[in-house]
Amino acid sequence: MTNEAVDLVAGEHFTAADRASFYRVLAARRDMRHFTPAASVDATVLHRVLQAAHDAPSVGLMQSWRFVRVIDASLRGRIAELVDAERVATAAALGERGDEFLQLKVEGVRDCAELIVAVLAPDDGTVFGRRTMPRDMALCSLACAVQNLWLAARAENLGLGWVSMFDPEALARLLHLPLGAQPMALLCLGPVPVFYDAPMLEQTGWRRGRPLSEFVHVDGWSDAAPSSS
Amino acid sequence: MTNEAVDLVAGEHFTAADRASFYRVLAARRDMRHFTPAASVDATVLHRVLQAAHDAPSVGLMQSWRFVRVIDASLRGRIAELVDAERVATAAALGERGDEFLQLKVEGVRDCAELIVAVLAPDDGTVFGRRTMPRDMALCSLACAVQNLWLAARAENLGLGWVSMFDPEALARLLHLPLGAQPMALLCLGPVPVFYDAPMLEQTGWRRGRPLSEFVHVDGWSDAAPSSS
Repeated sequence: MTNEAVDLVAGEHFTAADRASFYRVLAARRDMRHFTPAASVDATVLHRVLQAAHDAPSVGLMQSWRFVRVIDASLRGRIAELVDAERVATAAALGERGDEFLQLKVEGVRDCAELIVAVLAPDDGTVFGRRTMPRDMALCSLACAVQNLWLAARAENLGLGWVSMFDPEALARLLHLPLGAQPMALLCLGPVPVFYDAPMLEQTGWRRGRPLSEFVHVDGWSDAAPSSS
Repeated sequence: MTNEAVDLVAGEHFTAADRASFYRVLAARRDMRHFTPAASVDATVLHRVLQAAHDAPSVGLMQSWRFVRVIDASLRGRIAELVDAERVATAAALGERGDEFLQLKVEGVRDCAELIVAVLAPDDGTVFGRRTMPRDMALCSLACAVQNLWLAARAENLGLGWVSMFDPEALARLLHLPLGAQPMALLCLGPVPVFYDAPMLEQTGWRRGRPLSEFVHVDGWSDAAPSSS
């Protein structure tokens, strides 16, 4: 590990032990759909994972994310109904795998301790770093924030699931989002009875991930071509 | 910290020491533009940070990312020229802040030890989790992978900068990307002389980040409204 020799003039220096711990968090993170019922998340812990999200990078420092915490039980119920409807629509769109899909547990909106909606904020007109790809870069910043939150949750021994099965316009209406704001994720957060040993879509035989070697090219595209849906 | 009491039937359990180390990595991550010239990244370390990216979540397990490692010096030079051209175009688009912008160092494409292009793969038709937002969800998965790579780099005491100042179509041509593949990030990776104590855009007075409290809503939108560009 040649980097151990780098003399950092300022800033944190991380050791092999720090890295081992960090990589364990990355490897243990899962997209969770099974939550411990009637559990809660400590307010201090909730603040820490939201702060982790907010420590994410953003293009031109625009901080394009917003988080809507859902406390009202009837609002959560209406959101869950949107997800139910999209689940049926997805099954229909999947055709011959529709029945198999309906056997899967695909979300924990009703059971998780905390439901947080991650929203792409209305465009504030930032030019820096996004003249050619304005919406894409704002969206990537939001996703980086969610990934920080996800990893922080795992470090806190909490599960998180990113549910994207909803009609974004209907959800925007439920949350009274202003024009230009778009809900991107229903984040189900909370204690779980157990973390999956592997992605649940692999455990259930829905799909297998492919190895890193198929995803790295040198100096231009080559046809490693992962496939399937 | 109520979660310490959770009895995990399986999977990793993280301690307060693990969390402290993890949050230090998050807080120390910066968007770097100043790299140590003529440095290199150990092959083992490069593999670890790419594997970290590949351990990211993806919608429906589609793994929508590809990484193109740029080794050829003339190709890197042509990519740097694309960034130079976009820098000029950005200065023009910024109007009265254009001159101030041109004083900033906005990328380290020529100086970094490793240049990696993060590419959104052509759509493979995955339906699971992306019936209503197909491109957005694939793009968010790519961004989660980049964020994993970014944090892993910091844990390895390496700097990383996400450069988004380029014409994506011109870059796609340079890399011979197939139809539907889109370059999203020039990732500049490598040893740095020093990590910035704060985001460089704050250090240079370009823009200040706003506090978390302005980004969290309850049960619906409220006008906390961060602004400026």
